Amino acid sequence: MVPKNALYAQSGGVSAVINASACGVLETARQHPEQIGKVYAGRNGIIGALTEDLIDTRIESEAAIAALKHTPGAAFGSCRYKLGSIREDRAQYERLIEVFRAHDIGYFFYNGGGDSQDTAYKVSQLGAEMAYQIVCVGIPKTIDNDLPITDCSPGFGSVAKYVATSLREAALDLAAMSRTSTKVFTLEVMGRHAGWPTAACALAAEHEGDAPHILLLPEVVFNEERFLAKVEEALERYDQCVIAVSEGVKRPDGEFLSASGVKDSFGHAQLGGVAPVITSLIGTKLGCRCHWAVPDYLQRSARHIASETDVRQAYAVGRAAVEFAINGRNAVMPAIRRLSDAPYRWDIIAAPLAEVANQEKLLPPDFISDDGFGITDAARQYLAPLIVGEAYPPFKNGLPDYVKLRNVAVPRKLTAEFVI
Amino acid sequence: MVPKNALYAQSGGVSAVINASACGVLETARQHPEQIGKVYAGRNGIIGALTEDLIDTRIESEAAIAALKHTPGAAFGSCRYKLGSIREDRAQYERLIEVFRAHDIGYFFYNGGGDSQDTAYKVSQLGAEMAYQIVCVGIPKTIDNDLPITDCSPGFGSVAKYVATSLREAALDLAAMSRTSTKVFTLEVMGRHAGWPTAACALAAEHEGDAPHILLLPEVVFNEERFLAKVEEALERYDQCVIAVSEGVKRPDGEFLSASGVKDSFGHAQLGGVAPVITSLIGTKLGCRCHWAVPDYLQRSARHIASETDVRQAYAVGRAAVEFAINGRNAVMPAIRRLSDAPYRWDIIAAPLAEVANQEKLLPPDFISDDGFGITDAARQYLAPLIVGEAYPPFKNGLPDYVKLRNVAVPRKLTAEFVI
Repeated sequence: MVPKNALYAQSGGVSAVINASACGVLETARQHPEQIGKVYAGRNGIIGALTEDLIDTRIESEAAIAALKHTPGAAFGSCRYKLGSIREDRAQYERLIEVFRAHDIGYFFYNGGGDSQDTAYKVSQLGAEMAYQIVCVGIPKTIDNDLPITDCSPGFGSVAKYVATSLREAALDLAAMSRTSTKVFTLEVMGRHAGWPTAACALAAEHEGDAPHILLLPEVVFNEERFLAKVEEALERYDQCVIAVSEGVKRPDGEFLSASGVKDSFGHAQLGGVAPVITSLIGTKLGCRCHWAVPDYLQRSARHIASETDVRQAYAVGRAAVEFAINGRNAVMPAIRRLSDAPYRWDIIAAPLAEVANQEKLLPPDFISDDGFGITDAARQYLAPLIVGEAYPPFKNGLPDYVKLRNVAVPRKLTAEFVI
Repeated sequence: MVPKNALYAQSGGVSAVINASACGVLETARQHPEQIGKVYAGRNGIIGALTEDLIDTRIESEAAIAALKHTPGAAFGSCRYKLGSIREDRAQYERLIEVFRAHDIGYFFYNGGGDSQDTAYKVSQLGAEMAYQIVCVGIPKTIDNDLPITDCSPGFGSVAKYVATSLREAALDLAAMSRTSTKVFTLEVMGRHAGWPTAACALAAEHEGDAPHILLLPEVVFNEERFLAKVEEALERYDQCVIAVSEGVKRPDGEFLSASGVKDSFGHAQLGGVAPVITSLIGTKLGCRCHWAVPDYLQRSARHIASETDVRQAYAVGRAAVEFAINGRNAVMPAIRRLSDAPYRWDIIAAPLAEVANQEKLLPPDFISDDGFGITDAARQYLAPLIVGEAYPPFKNGLPDYVKLRNVAVPRKLTAEFVI
């Protein structure tokens, strides 16, 4: 049997470890030349496939591929681009097949979150629906940790470690200053719908009274009065209050708190930022000095403080994806299965893409404390192992030494342009 | 000679390495029992001295003192509290002398930035002006790097490493997404008056075109038109633009850009945040999708990514302060003197407090590029060695294991309360 080529692509918001999954795919594929020929990467995800902008990964050295394991971002470029159903967007799928056929692609690996798994699922149906035989495997990636079936999502553990570390550090700063200066510190954490990254901030606390004192989770509707009472309680007990707030916290009317009419000096609605809104509320109503931080991209690209557990899992799902593919398992996604909490043990199973696509796993009610401002022991038990271990990148001249691939395009074979 | 006791106190905004200076003071003092008796620490800086709230550092184990070297924040508490002149605030100085006398304090170490060195200088004059013999030594600390005489200030190197690392990482995120999503990323950096931390962001760039593409320094007046033209130029050349902006950037009328009337949904002026203002401007005028980050306290407490050079220097100025003191050198501050850039070599000299107090060292004109949006090679040469080396704290359960001292107060000897 002549080996088929493979296409790997990265999709959606990136993470500190999505390139570790790429490394797992590329290193494992290179070990199976009898089944997988060349591995191409789509430049900017599925867009590269549609526009026939394919990167030849064979040109990259083994050292460069290995360095992906410690490099954040998306080495081949990512995209926010969702394919419609095969019925709606038939032209796009026809184009995909044209490109696949031109480059003899028999395997497709799509590395991303919920939307991307939806795309992967649709591509996996090309055999049944459009008679193009392809083995399509999704590879999980999302800092939001909201993919179903898999116990956790690669990318999340590192964000969790980053936010818990940062919050612990900033809380020491606040504690040092609270006597004469700032008394409240608010950290804004990513997560539009699911509160996993915000919940992880609670890991910073070891003892009663340790920061964070309040979590604002997107799963819990914001109640101004109860929130302010909780802040006052913390100020009374500890003379300081540290808050972790999810960017996705909503008002009772369903509006994002962050989108609630913040205007800048130019009179324009301001982009994002729920931490300043919360801070302003506290400053006005309780009259104390506040600080806030919005780390934004910093949290999901902070490879310098990645979780070793997360890096291992990211690599493992990449490797498993290739193993599934060469065994002909179409329409699946490697999922992490937890075998035990302590010692933490896990393995990888195949989750059907049909069951993964478009599902969103929120914090379950038994992970949220009764008052809605914290997490339970069950949540802590779940979260704790995911941040364990350090996996520092190499440093050069005092800064992380990240790899930049050559990303040379494969010569085009098609004449038609495809405009996205 | 019966040894005199010493008082050490921390002041002003804290840093990732001010406790390393404390460690240098305490470990060195313990080596000189013939000259220094007990070492007390003021709880919350000079306030602890005024209110006779002194911490007995002898109670802390050697391991706990050693752990200060890797713990951010201010282990004994800090404050923002400035003493007036001896003439204006005579009652405060009389109180200080009372406390000093009650606890037989012959050495005073004050660890802080410009304002704190001013306080240290005033205390150093108690012998001449109020006949209380004391040896007072200032210890430099400021992330702003704006103290004069000393080549750099402990605290700065670690902030520099944090912001350059974070910017490099976030830029990889932006580069991965810019094809279909966000094209501009703005990182807000501390520094009200001096642009040192913002300038350090430029270290993230290795090659032409690397991020950051634009620096907005407080030393350069903000010009909206020129700035937007520069952003457009970057977008044209690189299809993306990364900006580092100092919180202290000012409009032509002298107003802080951050304070220029940002209102929240409650109709109140919003606290801080120049990055959202800049982002809003770009979004409105150039119509592209932008992200911004304000790390705030995270940057100055990020001990997990501290510069090893900075940690060494912070420790060294603490040690030198004690050595100066036991040699009877009053009214000085250990200052770092650069001997060579590459290899980086430095030693410590004594700077007269009279010349340090209330001076602010801004970025010199030859460190700022002609267009005002970047730094020169001279600046790069100065900055480069300060971020070199990693000095990771120990980790436990996936998080940095920082020490919390017992901070037991010494029994009071005075009956009068002192209200600050």
